[in-house]
Amino acid sequence: MSKKTATVIFQPSGRRGEVPVGVNIIEASRLLGVDIEAPCGEKKVCGKCIVRIEEGRFEKYGITSGMDHVGDWLVEEEKFINDERKAKGFRLGCVATVKDDILVFVPEEARAGKQVVSKAARAIHIDFNPCIRTYYVSVDKPTFEEPTGDFERICNGLEREFGLCNLTIDIFALRQLCDALREGDWGVTVSVWDNKEIIRVLPGRHKNGPYGIAIDVGTTTVAGYMCDLSTMEVIDTVSMMNPQCKYGEDVMARITYHMTTDGGLKRMSDDIIEGLNGLIEKAVMSTHPPKKEVKGADGSKEMVEVPEEGKEYLRLTMDDIEDITIGFNTAMHHILLSLNPEYVGLAPFPPVIHHSMDIKARDLGVKVNPSSYLYVLPIEAGFVGADNVGVLICEEPYKYEENQLIIDVGTNGELVLGNKHKLISSSCATGPALEGAQLSYGMRAAPGAIERIDIDRETKDVTYRVIGQEKSNKEIDDVTKMGAKGICGSAILDVLAELYRSGTIRKTGQFNKKVLKDCPRFRKNPDTNQPEFVIAWANESSIDKDIVVTQRDIRQIQLAKGALYAGCKLMLKRMGLDNPDRVKIAGAFGTHIDREKSLIMGLFPDCEVEKIEGVGNAAGDGCRAALLDMKKRVEANWCSRNVEYVELTVEETFEQDFMEAMQLPHMVDPFPHLVGLVDEDILNQ
Amino acid sequence: MSKKTATVIFQPSGRRGEVPVGVNIIEASRLLGVDIEAPCGEKKVCGKCIVRIEEGRFEKYGITSGMDHVGDWLVEEEKFINDERKAKGFRLGCVATVKDDILVFVPEEARAGKQVVSKAARAIHIDFNPCIRTYYVSVDKPTFEEPTGDFERICNGLEREFGLCNLTIDIFALRQLCDALREGDWGVTVSVWDNKEIIRVLPGRHKNGPYGIAIDVGTTTVAGYMCDLSTMEVIDTVSMMNPQCKYGEDVMARITYHMTTDGGLKRMSDDIIEGLNGLIEKAVMSTHPPKKEVKGADGSKEMVEVPEEGKEYLRLTMDDIEDITIGFNTAMHHILLSLNPEYVGLAPFPPVIHHSMDIKARDLGVKVNPSSYLYVLPIEAGFVGADNVGVLICEEPYKYEENQLIIDVGTNGELVLGNKHKLISSSCATGPALEGAQLSYGMRAAPGAIERIDIDRETKDVTYRVIGQEKSNKEIDDVTKMGAKGICGSAILDVLAELYRSGTIRKTGQFNKKVLKDCPRFRKNPDTNQPEFVIAWANESSIDKDIVVTQRDIRQIQLAKGALYAGCKLMLKRMGLDNPDRVKIAGAFGTHIDREKSLIMGLFPDCEVEKIEGVGNAAGDGCRAALLDMKKRVEANWCSRNVEYVELTVEETFEQDFMEAMQLPHMVDPFPHLVGLVDEDILNQ
Repeated sequence: MSKKTATVIFQPSGRRGEVPVGVNIIEASRLLGVDIEAPCGEKKVCGKCIVRIEEGRFEKYGITSGMDHVGDWLVEEEKFINDERKAKGFRLGCVATVKDDILVFVPEEARAGKQVVSKAARAIHIDFNPCIRTYYVSVDKPTFEEPTGDFERICNGLEREFGLCNLTIDIFALRQLCDALREGDWGVTVSVWDNKEIIRVLPGRHKNGPYGIAIDVGTTTVAGYMCDLSTMEVIDTVSMMNPQCKYGEDVMARITYHMTTDGGLKRMSDDIIEGLNGLIEKAVMSTHPPKKEVKGADGSKEMVEVPEEGKEYLRLTMDDIEDITIGFNTAMHHILLSLNPEYVGLAPFPPVIHHSMDIKARDLGVKVNPSSYLYVLPIEAGFVGADNVGVLICEEPYKYEENQLIIDVGTNGELVLGNKHKLISSSCATGPALEGAQLSYGMRAAPGAIERIDIDRETKDVTYRVIGQEKSNKEIDDVTKMGAKGICGSAILDVLAELYRSGTIRKTGQFNKKVLKDCPRFRKNPDTNQPEFVIAWANESSIDKDIVVTQRDIRQIQLAKGALYAGCKLMLKRMGLDNPDRVKIAGAFGTHIDREKSLIMGLFPDCEVEKIEGVGNAAGDGCRAALLDMKKRVEANWCSRNVEYVELTVEETFEQDFMEAMQLPHMVDPFPHLVGLVDEDILNQ
Repeated sequence: MSKKTATVIFQPSGRRGEVPVGVNIIEASRLLGVDIEAPCGEKKVCGKCIVRIEEGRFEKYGITSGMDHVGDWLVEEEKFINDERKAKGFRLGCVATVKDDILVFVPEEARAGKQVVSKAARAIHIDFNPCIRTYYVSVDKPTFEEPTGDFERICNGLEREFGLCNLTIDIFALRQLCDALREGDWGVTVSVWDNKEIIRVLPGRHKNGPYGIAIDVGTTTVAGYMCDLSTMEVIDTVSMMNPQCKYGEDVMARITYHMTTDGGLKRMSDDIIEGLNGLIEKAVMSTHPPKKEVKGADGSKEMVEVPEEGKEYLRLTMDDIEDITIGFNTAMHHILLSLNPEYVGLAPFPPVIHHSMDIKARDLGVKVNPSSYLYVLPIEAGFVGADNVGVLICEEPYKYEENQLIIDVGTNGELVLGNKHKLISSSCATGPALEGAQLSYGMRAAPGAIERIDIDRETKDVTYRVIGQEKSNKEIDDVTKMGAKGICGSAILDVLAELYRSGTIRKTGQFNKKVLKDCPRFRKNPDTNQPEFVIAWANESSIDKDIVVTQRDIRQIQLAKGALYAGCKLMLKRMGLDNPDRVKIAGAFGTHIDREKSLIMGLFPDCEVEKIEGVGNAAGDGCRAALLDMKKRVEANWCSRNVEYVELTVEETFEQDFMEAMQLPHMVDPFPHLVGLVDEDILNQ
């Protein structure tokens, strides 16, 4: 008997569900609340909705996927998908129909909805001291009396005019020198790396640049800041999903993939490098005018530039990118560099290397200027990586007397505590729940995402806001226009805090059935038999389904916040402190954090409300600081070896602390700042 | 009317001549005295005689070659030549027939006759101070208390036990570290480059090596010395023809090829790199037992090792080569490194760079250990290259009070003169005549080459010796067994000196017709109308032709020796000297030099006979010194910038000096040491 429905999992979002057999992938994506670009309206003519059917890798979800689980190839697809890509499983989403359980990877370019970049560059103070500097040098022509070679000639000039001594030159740059000198009439602009090595030679006096890019490779998201290294200005901020998501959503899954799959490490490394090349190209192309397709008189199509009037375009090329700094957690670091990540996932979690590295871009296949270096930030420990070093050199807790607790919430939680005298770090397995992932209706911060929630204490009615929609569901005339699709990271805290504050859930996190007994938003899901609470009704959504928070979702968030709180508490204990003087929340999560609600939830130990700060993507900002200020690279190596890593899971009281911390709010110590925020009467209903 | 004969030029030997149309290439090679391997006796079954028909590049010889100038492709060739190689012009020499003028390139592997390696390693004193050293280091396992990463762990060990500080590690070596540490039970052998960078990690204690290779890239010949860097022993000496010969026999022709051919530089660079990889592999494979083809019971063929009894084999791999030093003239340097060589050939001949370079082997496509460096010796000037620096650091004239004149005779002549206070260098366009090339019957030092000549003063009869033949033509019972094929470099001096000493030629180099009027060896060639002198008769040769020296050949040798003498003379003048204290002759030419005959010829200014030394391949020995002793690399850079290059062609008296120096012997100053060597009576006949 053939199946009536099939399970479809979309990657990298992870959104999954049952769809009727026979629908095409675009339709399936709509049913499951995933956005795929389909501007031609499924007429099979635009080729924008190309997706990849993944081979049977995700057995852990109980499905085996493959090309034989989708409908037949149509001739219309040939125009957009060549044989090579066809063999790799690429299909038009509007053609391929669902025949059986499948796993569908939606490439970045096919994903609809401009992401609300939560990793935007923040205004932070950075000293001007870039690793790459350019110099114009003019020299005399060689003569019989003075036939010195080209390189020595410009070195003499650079020493005479700028005091640069003992320079070397990269072989790729040396190949440009001879012709550049003659083309520039014996004047060239040279790029010097770290006052040591010439990495580029351009003829004559070159006005613009040099340029560099700071990259923060998160487990889920990758962000890049392209900077003008002469003005320190951020020219463009770009981001993308980490293409490694298809190998597993967290670092342990990817380490397992390496250990269980021949060539798995190389595949993951190649994928992220290819992704970085695409990301950098996106940044570079942002300096060119946009292009538009026009039809010639003979019907032929052509892409032509459509410059904005009066706007000057830098028109950078990949070769113009002369410096890269990169930060990531230890597993991502190892995978990107093709270093065996196995032992990073195995106690006592030693990394292969701590120290920063300068690696030629060409040695990694990064297609910027081939002579340029990629500066890899140093690693603190197996679970506190270069990204945390980035946070440190950005926030500089080692320069202050006050005790700072810095929490970087990503797919994993990384913690630093201390002051100018001592710093300790640790990590805690929060999982990605705080970022909205792995929840029934979690989604990334994109149009349609619910980003703010308020629950009425009496009626338990919900007021919410959606990204891309100015009015809340209570202000809008026609609720069917809300177009809600899911709940993004910034609303996760709201969900828990509001459910709690309104008495909808108990301290244990369980739904308070007594309070909810007549509430239309509360119900048991007939399929899963799980209690759930409706945030937005189907008619308010664009996915034609109620958007709910389930008991399991709440448990996930509790686990995350419990891990975080217990970690912080143990670190304070280790430092002999009761409370931190200041709490900084980094990561996309920290950008939108509601300080009061985070205290209500018991996300971290008590602290004066005004001393709680969201510091945004501090890891990325640290990479940017290292790009623009060489001193930061020295600081980074200092941090990586002088911040003491504390393994929390081996602490005696960890289990107990963790269990207690899952409660709402954590009751081990009183929260003076919470007085009035939580209505004890409601909680005691 | 179809042609009866066709011109065939064989490369890289340059041997050329007319052959009957219709003969196959093996036959043509025999007619012209070129050896091609054909062990199967032209039965088309061994595939050893593969040659390449070159496309029409050699118009300067008046011929245009191409695949349509040879006979049809036969099915027998398919077994040995795939489609790709077929498209490149490869053919079996025993199949392809000559239809019209062709240019045939004989690959190294198809060349018969083991070359008499004149570039063998000489016993010279070298201090032990290699750039690569290996260290065994054993470390503790990581624990929760001490979870330091692998790299920092071994660095701590290397600092503690060997005092090595601030080491970095190449990314390719770092990729080996993690598994090597665990495989070696926390002990590894690391290779450290220049006390700075770890370039290799092997599990456990590794007994042998490290190994390196010093390479001397000549315009015509390439030699390599593979050394054990721990014992300084030369394990194998290998040599090959420079595969770039097909682009032109001298450096100017190759520079022209670059300037006139799109992608010509890349093609020449790729060819020499590919050649080096083959050369290194040859050295590496010499440490394995030889292989033999055996037939299985089922008739299948297989290659099996045939080790010599009791012999131990190192069984090295390309990865075991961890250091390379390389020297060459400036044009070869530029071409190999893909640096524009155009201006090296254009006054005032500035090179792109003088300084030595450390280039990762992988950046040049040299397939040894990918983390290893290739040390490129520095350049003195456009026409005095890294090879001359090699000669200098080998001979060390800068350490002595006496004035040394060092002459390196290759395809070009390079001269150094001076002492510990001052050194000058120059080059002179000798052309390859002194090495035997471009003469009618010039050939390389291989079996069949005439290497010694003696002419009777009365009868003008010739006594000669042939490589591979113990007896001279006067001692042997059956002269038809002499098997002479041509005249090699070491006999060139003999030819001129003996012709002169016997009065056969005059001081001007012209044949003395009065003396020769009844001599059966003297005649006018009926085809060219050129006077010529027979060295070996056709029945004494294996090419069935008289081996002669023509008036044009003598002129070529005179031009070469004139250029050399005039150059030396001008340098002496520049240094305010009349004569050098010591003369050293480097290059293959110097290995077999007859000191007296070189004075008779007036090859260089007068010097006490016992102070004339042949120093063999000093350029190659210098590369070897730089491989084994780091101090030599410092000396090399010192030399390259402190030896003053003198451009002789711009000297006012150069033309006049050159003209005078062409005379035999040079008469500008008296040769006290020649008294008695030349019979004035004979000369005045």
